[in-house]
Amino acid sequence: MALRSFVEVHPDSHFPIQNLPYGVFKPGPGSSPRPGVAIGDYVLDLSELASAGLFDGPLLSNSDCFLQPNLNKFVSLGRPAWKEARATLQKLLSANEPTLRDNTALKQKCLVPMNRVELLLPVAIGDYTDFFSSLHHTRNCGILFRGPQNPVLENWFRLPVAYHGRASSIVISGTDIVRPRGQGPPAGSSTPYFGSSLKLDFELEMASVVGPGNELGKPVDINEAADHIFGLVLMNDWSARDIQAWEYVPLGPFLGKNFGTTISPWIVTLEALEPFATDAPKQDPPPLPYLAEKASKNYDVSLEVRIKPAEQNNLSLVTRSNLKHLYWTLTQQLAHHTVNGCNLRPGDLLGTGTISGPEPDSLGCLLELTMNGQKELSLNGATRKFLEDGDEVIFTGCCQGNGYKVGFGTCSGKVVPSPP
Amino acid sequence: MALRSFVEVHPDSHFPIQNLPYGVFKPGPGSSPRPGVAIGDYVLDLSELASAGLFDGPLLSNSDCFLQPNLNKFVSLGRPAWKEARATLQKLLSANEPTLRDNTALKQKCLVPMNRVELLLPVAIGDYTDFFSSLHHTRNCGILFRGPQNPVLENWFRLPVAYHGRASSIVISGTDIVRPRGQGPPAGSSTPYFGSSLKLDFELEMASVVGPGNELGKPVDINEAADHIFGLVLMNDWSARDIQAWEYVPLGPFLGKNFGTTISPWIVTLEALEPFATDAPKQDPPPLPYLAEKASKNYDVSLEVRIKPAEQNNLSLVTRSNLKHLYWTLTQQLAHHTVNGCNLRPGDLLGTGTISGPEPDSLGCLLELTMNGQKELSLNGATRKFLEDGDEVIFTGCCQGNGYKVGFGTCSGKVVPSPP
Repeated sequence: MALRSFVEVHPDSHFPIQNLPYGVFKPGPGSSPRPGVAIGDYVLDLSELASAGLFDGPLLSNSDCFLQPNLNKFVSLGRPAWKEARATLQKLLSANEPTLRDNTALKQKCLVPMNRVELLLPVAIGDYTDFFSSLHHTRNCGILFRGPQNPVLENWFRLPVAYHGRASSIVISGTDIVRPRGQGPPAGSSTPYFGSSLKLDFELEMASVVGPGNELGKPVDINEAADHIFGLVLMNDWSARDIQAWEYVPLGPFLGKNFGTTISPWIVTLEALEPFATDAPKQDPPPLPYLAEKASKNYDVSLEVRIKPAEQNNLSLVTRSNLKHLYWTLTQQLAHHTVNGCNLRPGDLLGTGTISGPEPDSLGCLLELTMNGQKELSLNGATRKFLEDGDEVIFTGCCQGNGYKVGFGTCSGKVVPSPP
Repeated sequence: MALRSFVEVHPDSHFPIQNLPYGVFKPGPGSSPRPGVAIGDYVLDLSELASAGLFDGPLLSNSDCFLQPNLNKFVSLGRPAWKEARATLQKLLSANEPTLRDNTALKQKCLVPMNRVELLLPVAIGDYTDFFSSLHHTRNCGILFRGPQNPVLENWFRLPVAYHGRASSIVISGTDIVRPRGQGPPAGSSTPYFGSSLKLDFELEMASVVGPGNELGKPVDINEAADHIFGLVLMNDWSARDIQAWEYVPLGPFLGKNFGTTISPWIVTLEALEPFATDAPKQDPPPLPYLAEKASKNYDVSLEVRIKPAEQNNLSLVTRSNLKHLYWTLTQQLAHHTVNGCNLRPGDLLGTGTISGPEPDSLGCLLELTMNGQKELSLNGATRKFLEDGDEVIFTGCCQGNGYKVGFGTCSGKVVPSPP
């Protein structure tokens, strides 16, 4: 019989005892940030559990990692400590275990209704890297920007292409996104366009949160890369396509991306995702030895994007995709990132790039869905080529287990107008 | 008569009382990091001065900004506090002022011989951006990579092109640089090259250290941009040209750059550089209004690059350039960076890009000096197309005043072999 918690969890909840994703929250307006895990409609306060001495395993009993304002210290401890924490939490929350279940005062302190808390960025992000690892997305963008001949460049099949993003503008789900101003391509031979972006887009991504880092000059072996990944979040890499198109040659995306990137508040661990591992697509040509892994896997995470226009009460589903569509795996991304000696630090974020699937309704951004504004998307009667002010974009991600879900909750943001 | 310190300063020193650049140091192996300023051959310990109550102005007398392990808090305070600190320090160090001069015990504690201290990164760098603002460098690279027709792309004259770099691998002058491994272009139609980079290069740059930041969604006006720049450092943006050439299309430089970036330890303030301000080059086409500044200025900083091969005792001068050659100014870079609402944080680093001058001996990297390895550079009998293991690269930067210099000291690093 499946593991069950004494905390009541609806079968449709993303947060049963099989998940236990980590986040950072404030229980009330005046309180300090602290780590927690989601369980059903509650947040379990890990600082209170730690203060009560309930992390009694050998690695965590003397650690102050849950008394920090972010998860960086905990994620830096590595997989043995993560496994110990998960075992402790699954035991404490299980239906058969009286320690927390029967201690009303402690339960009162530790279990906070999720609708009462403020969720914060779970980690301090030192560096944020964004990959470009979906073949469908890469091919579609290549066709749109360079035409149908040779839409995927030769290097793409040899290495997980990536660029550095901006860490300062990563925000937590629920934060408004100010429409960026900037330069767009000149129409004809005149001066460039300048003003609010006319082609604001979302990008459906997920991102790895780095656990233990590596020293500068010391690459991570591909078969040890999984031990450097703590877990995953949903990510919306908001993009201004007109700004991007004009600025990105030859040094890549900059102001078209760095005005805001939204992540979901709960980091779902690789341990919780393990039952949903799938074989990664076969790679042809085969990867170079430093990218060839003994087991090459993705995870079966169903992803959905909905848009809610300001004037509507309904959300319109605009795409369904899946993390399993990635061509380059999360571990290949991490190994490639360090092969030159580049150092990762605990809490760094590695985005997958837009995750598009093979079907027309599985494309991960409006650029693809509307063919760069050549056609319109219908939203309950309203139409969109790109995002309008007031639009709210909501991502969800979820794995379907046998009678339970392991989910990511939502990653959402509303577009607000540019400053005057 | 020129301002003079009671601390003896050689006329060739980069650090007279007119300069007073800020850094962070450990006075001895066991001690904690603390802010200091360079004066002649000494470092003045600002934590000791602050503890002795000698910062007695209205803005700093109750601040703990000099009791921090980095300068982020001080630089966040803004220009009025910087001016107050400079006035206090120039007074305390001046030949006529007895407070410090005649207090032997305090002097003993506060003035540490520079050759005894360990210099550290002066700021915690949240995000690092690298611009591409020298027209000479841009044109030379365009000719090498795309041929002599139209070597500078249309967007370059309209906006200061930039990309995000890696903050984690920024190191202080004197740190060894491990030669990166990685993929290079395939020779013919075979698989890509993989191994130690065969085209390791330096890039002569300077970088702005951001003072007060801006809120996400709130651009900085071009005419207020200077108040967001605390000062400048020298920077070597080490580059692996073979890795870069293979990976950079379409998302820009990544592993070809992020294995290491070296900065000089002393931040020279804009106040100290003000006497060396020069008119920036006329821009044609004229900049869009958000980049049009009332006064458009560069600084006359002479820059020199020397290489010392492992087997030689001598340094060979390989280039002489100058910060005044920049096409896009430091303030235009900063205003452009925020025009879309992107937030900067105190301590962020904005690199200028390689600073090449118009002459053949003023080119800022080996890519240009050897025309991507097509010709050899002579170093006291040795020759180089790119850097070899054991090579030490030393940058210096200096402004020549009337009877004194305002300098940056050196920014150096030695290339060590790739891991096996």
